Amino acid sequence: MATLRKQYAVSRYVYSEDSFGEDYEKVYRVRKTTLDHVKEYLTCDSKRAKNAVLSLLPIIGWMRIYRVREWLLGDVVSGISTGLIAIMQGLAFSLLASLPPSYGLYTAFFPMLTYFFLGTSRHISVGSFPVLSLMVGAVVTRLVPDEGPPANITGFEGLTQDQQRVLVASSVTFLMGIFQLAMGVLQVGFIVVYLSDTLVSGFTTAAAVHILVSQLKFVLGLTVPGISGPLSIIYTLEKIFVQITSTNICDLVMSILIMAMVFIVKELNDIYKAKLPVPIPIEVIMTVIACGVSYGFNFEKRYDVEIVGKMVSGYEPPMAPNVEVFQESAVEAFPIAIVGFAVAFSVAKVYSIKHDYTIDGNQELIAFGISNIFGASFRSFAASTALSRTAVQESSGGKTQIAGLISAMMAMIVTVALGFLLEPLPRSVLGALVIVNLKGMLMQFREIPYLWRRDKTECLVWLGTCLGAILLGLDLGLVVGLGVELLTVVFRSQFPRCSVLANINGTDLYRDRKDYLHIFEPKGVKIFRIPSPIFFANIEFFRDKLVEAVGFNPLRVLRKRNKALRKIKKQLQQKDDDITERGSRDLVCQTTEESYMNMEELDQPTDLKGFPFQMDWNAELPSNVDVPRVDLHSLILDFSAVSFLDISAMKGLKMALKEFIRIDVDVYIVACDVYIVEKLHMCMFFDDEILTSMFFPTLHDAMLHVLEKHKDDTKNGWVLRDTRL
Amino acid sequence: MATLRKQYAVSRYVYSEDSFGEDYEKVYRVRKTTLDHVKEYLTCDSKRAKNAVLSLLPIIGWMRIYRVREWLLGDVVSGISTGLIAIMQGLAFSLLASLPPSYGLYTAFFPMLTYFFLGTSRHISVGSFPVLSLMVGAVVTRLVPDEGPPANITGFEGLTQDQQRVLVASSVTFLMGIFQLAMGVLQVGFIVVYLSDTLVSGFTTAAAVHILVSQLKFVLGLTVPGISGPLSIIYTLEKIFVQITSTNICDLVMSILIMAMVFIVKELNDIYKAKLPVPIPIEVIMTVIACGVSYGFNFEKRYDVEIVGKMVSGYEPPMAPNVEVFQESAVEAFPIAIVGFAVAFSVAKVYSIKHDYTIDGNQELIAFGISNIFGASFRSFAASTALSRTAVQESSGGKTQIAGLISAMMAMIVTVALGFLLEPLPRSVLGALVIVNLKGMLMQFREIPYLWRRDKTECLVWLGTCLGAILLGLDLGLVVGLGVELLTVVFRSQFPRCSVLANINGTDLYRDRKDYLHIFEPKGVKIFRIPSPIFFANIEFFRDKLVEAVGFNPLRVLRKRNKALRKIKKQLQQKDDDITERGSRDLVCQTTEESYMNMEELDQPTDLKGFPFQMDWNAELPSNVDVPRVDLHSLILDFSAVSFLDISAMKGLKMALKEFIRIDVDVYIVACDVYIVEKLHMCMFFDDEILTSMFFPTLHDAMLHVLEKHKDDTKNGWVLRDTRL
Repeated sequence: MATLRKQYAVSRYVYSEDSFGEDYEKVYRVRKTTLDHVKEYLTCDSKRAKNAVLSLLPIIGWMRIYRVREWLLGDVVSGISTGLIAIMQGLAFSLLASLPPSYGLYTAFFPMLTYFFLGTSRHISVGSFPVLSLMVGAVVTRLVPDEGPPANITGFEGLTQDQQRVLVASSVTFLMGIFQLAMGVLQVGFIVVYLSDTLVSGFTTAAAVHILVSQLKFVLGLTVPGISGPLSIIYTLEKIFVQITSTNICDLVMSILIMAMVFIVKELNDIYKAKLPVPIPIEVIMTVIACGVSYGFNFEKRYDVEIVGKMVSGYEPPMAPNVEVFQESAVEAFPIAIVGFAVAFSVAKVYSIKHDYTIDGNQELIAFGISNIFGASFRSFAASTALSRTAVQESSGGKTQIAGLISAMMAMIVTVALGFLLEPLPRSVLGALVIVNLKGMLMQFREIPYLWRRDKTECLVWLGTCLGAILLGLDLGLVVGLGVELLTVVFRSQFPRCSVLANINGTDLYRDRKDYLHIFEPKGVKIFRIPSPIFFANIEFFRDKLVEAVGFNPLRVLRKRNKALRKIKKQLQQKDDDITERGSRDLVCQTTEESYMNMEELDQPTDLKGFPFQMDWNAELPSNVDVPRVDLHSLILDFSAVSFLDISAMKGLKMALKEFIRIDVDVYIVACDVYIVEKLHMCMFFDDEILTSMFFPTLHDAMLHVLEKHKDDTKNGWVLRDTRL
Repeated sequence: MATLRKQYAVSRYVYSEDSFGEDYEKVYRVRKTTLDHVKEYLTCDSKRAKNAVLSLLPIIGWMRIYRVREWLLGDVVSGISTGLIAIMQGLAFSLLASLPPSYGLYTAFFPMLTYFFLGTSRHISVGSFPVLSLMVGAVVTRLVPDEGPPANITGFEGLTQDQQRVLVASSVTFLMGIFQLAMGVLQVGFIVVYLSDTLVSGFTTAAAVHILVSQLKFVLGLTVPGISGPLSIIYTLEKIFVQITSTNICDLVMSILIMAMVFIVKELNDIYKAKLPVPIPIEVIMTVIACGVSYGFNFEKRYDVEIVGKMVSGYEPPMAPNVEVFQESAVEAFPIAIVGFAVAFSVAKVYSIKHDYTIDGNQELIAFGISNIFGASFRSFAASTALSRTAVQESSGGKTQIAGLISAMMAMIVTVALGFLLEPLPRSVLGALVIVNLKGMLMQFREIPYLWRRDKTECLVWLGTCLGAILLGLDLGLVVGLGVELLTVVFRSQFPRCSVLANINGTDLYRDRKDYLHIFEPKGVKIFRIPSPIFFANIEFFRDKLVEAVGFNPLRVLRKRNKALRKIKKQLQQKDDDITERGSRDLVCQTTEESYMNMEELDQPTDLKGFPFQMDWNAELPSNVDVPRVDLHSLILDFSAVSFLDISAMKGLKMALKEFIRIDVDVYIVACDVYIVEKLHMCMFFDDEILTSMFFPTLHDAMLHVLEKHKDDTKNGWVLRDTRL
């Protein structure tokens, strides 16, 4: 297959786009207008109504196909194992949110109840997510700091510090739910495409660093006030290292033991994945042991270890969110809403592809929005999904959200009946469990060299997002990362490598002239390739490159010619007063109203009216007239890679083309997208100088046309090789 | 020229990129590495040193060519007329900055002194610019409000309110100068390309609205405290309308009279441009008259008109900026620096093109940076250029910055000796003059319908910037506008119109199959055109469109085939135990380590090892096996418009290609940019499934190759027309 010796033979007319259009007429297609789309969108019939209900309540869809015998057992087993993890994670992640541990159990219960009916994913485990918990925690510690008075919010009166914090957390969650619901209703779920893999990787790595730092105080048994805002991570580390000598040795030893055990057993789980029916639930085992030991040896009293303490037993009545907190935290709730949805959606997508069903981004937004609003009313905090928990739910046999419901029931049982068993658990154990689970996220640092080798720009996005999020905090860091990422798209099109093309001898192919030896470049013709879209940020760059490629500045040539002409006319006039002066006077002064926005007015084309003979600028001129010689008669622009043009680019292009046309260089545009030509027509690009006849379908068509047109130009100073390509 | 009947005849071998590379070897080119560029940049010889000095002191360049006889008279005349305007504008714009009027005269003097030596533009008039003055004013009124105590800054102690304001304004200007100087030294002047014409137009229109509102209080003779921050314009309007009944009739009548007069005379100036030697200096005339009338009738006492009042006579000693103000205003000083430079540079560029000399963006940044630092030390506020003043300087005959120097001297004379003459001037007159000069900027509202018709996206950028800047304030508005503008670039490439191409009968040309009637589409071949760069935000979109275009989901087909194969193998095994079971067991379970980042693992290709016969998926299959029929054997992707690919796109593309290859569809990529192929090699895109032999130089080459390869495929269910294209 490598070398094909089959013949390529084409024989047809040379086409310009115009003549091609004459020979092959275009089919007239009626395009839908925006109005049509709106009408279509608003049309309602029974089928559409039914579909709308089905898409709003996805549970109907999967309940109808539920295979009780095959799926139920798997769902139950999976629900129980996921439930154990959800309880552990709920307790641990509530520490990240700076809340009492029992509220983590609420988060494992309430949001699931509504997601069960509304969610399109059958495999994700809805509940707390460490990054989200940390982001909520940042708001909580900002409004209700450990030291100093809380923010000036009327709703705080008469509440304990923990109650104030729960109020803040649930209000932020409520607001986040409103944002998600609104985005879902407005059908803007697509915005998650802007969170590229690279950005998400950098962001979650930064989150892991934040989580690590925030858990250090538990592991070391120190009391460090939560700090939020830019550079908070540095201040927190400073506070920790200042009091590092007061480390609680009991906490530290226990944490290190637990981390080591969990780490080792997890590695073993990985290695013997195939042989174990279910992975060893080492975290649950360690928690139970730690609870027992702590209770038996009375760690709290004897070693001054901070324990989970009094759990709220049962549920509290629902609570309205606080509007003042909304005002204070609106800027932070929006990134929380985006991150929460983006994570859940990307995890859900992986499993939907694996199990071959469709998920709907907008419906997911609605589901998470309502779940968070519902959960927040019952004091749970921001819910999304955790990758690790979802992996367990799916791998232990979960087929539908029945598994999720069962895991929620497990959380309920602990809240209602078994909470007291967890009371002696040291907080350092929870911290240790959080830290040991960061391994995967922190491993993402390995992407730096990987990206650096492959794509420096992408590496920049990763580093920008990660450093931004570490130093400025997660919300600002996300904004910085997004900014950098969008800039890279602009940047990639902004400084592309332009090239001058030449014909490859004996073919109809054109390549970069610097790359090949056997090339054919007829004199007086330049082929310039524009390898990217043209827009406001690179049009000047292209004009500079074009001037560089042709070797002269057409505007300057035009001016010199006009100046020379005035001189010659004057000389002629001295000889012969018959020739009217009008032509020469208005030559440079007259200006056209190009456009009222267009400040750079072009010089006029050389005016040869009322001039007794044809001017040949490349012939010998009188010695007192100095005009640069132009050995170019045709400029061919390869537009095949120009995927869009904006108004600035169009103005700049028009000016550039006119400059060349006015010094008698024919300009051809080749392989231009049909939509771009349409747009040029719409924007009045064409006039009496810029004609539609300059478009050609291929480079070779344009070249053949040029060679034909200039075949007897040799007398003009251009030497053309008389050759058939 | 319209219809060309010249013959296009090509006869050569069919090439794939590989075979083309064999026939035409590429020239090996040594590319400069980053290191080489750095080395080159750091190399120093006498010539470079001389050039560096020349570029740092552009005055040397133009002083050497100064033609005293021809240019001096023009410079002097121009300097005097510009000077008059500079004085007027200085007084008026200092009101925008909420400063006493005399400081506007400082701004017309000090920055010019250094720009004279450092600036590369010979025509711009350096000094106050209304938008910039307003932006400085926003900081001034925020830190030193009219009502209530000033910000908690130690340097304010013992100063009057006006002195505090001057301190704030000069500190902000100093900081702005530092930013500009730093950008110039770091050679990042190119960032102004991001401020597209559309954005600048929307921004300046918003600025005009702000200026209009801020001057209303002077024109109406009301006392309204300056308000800053988001929505300040609405609060200001509210305060004005609440007390509209207390309007000072004398101020109002005088303002309206002056506005009408100036407006009419300016129109006349425009109409009789050609006949007037210089435009009538109506503003100066009106000011002199207003001064005289106000003094003669004692407006201040009699009608309670607010006048300019005590002018500072002479200059004050230089002053250090306040570092606390730096901290408070750093976020605002940066946009001020950008806007100041962007305006000056764009105006300078217009005149440099007109008069055919080069300006240097980075040197301009250095010049304005030093000028602002120098000016701020002498209490002047932010300097840039005003379009109107520069137009006067150039049109009245200014050839070099000698004119600018003379206009600065005029401002000095007024400051030192004639200031007292301006003291009785009513402030409402200055307000009226500012408002009447907003005409041009406000006329830009006409761009909305113009842009809407031509390019809706661009219209969105204009509206976004303008509304953002009006409602959120100029600094935040600029950020919003930039964000919207960058998003549009992403957006334009994000949802492009993909199309399926077909051969135009009897040619080697390929067009959208929906557009033409006489097309040739061999069965089993699809040509899919990707009309834009591929990156993180649109790779999924393309995969969806591709699935839509071919009419089936390749992943689903692959799974069904694998499933069917297992079934068939089981059936065979029941008949014949000889066939080893190995093949069928590992079929779906085995996974490869695609990449540690790659979570979506692909299903494996159908494994036919150890299988007794060749599988033909499109033949009749046993009735219990349900596999979708695929009537596609070749997929050709037209990459001619793909100007870049990022890592996400590469991963997605690789996955999409593999899905097709694994169901035995040959994939060809056509007209791919050489740099993209290079990058694919670098990023390990190719493996044992994705081969470099899939690249072809043109669509027609690929099509001929496909037709040749499948010419006896008819028995397989594909019917190929036996035709020469």
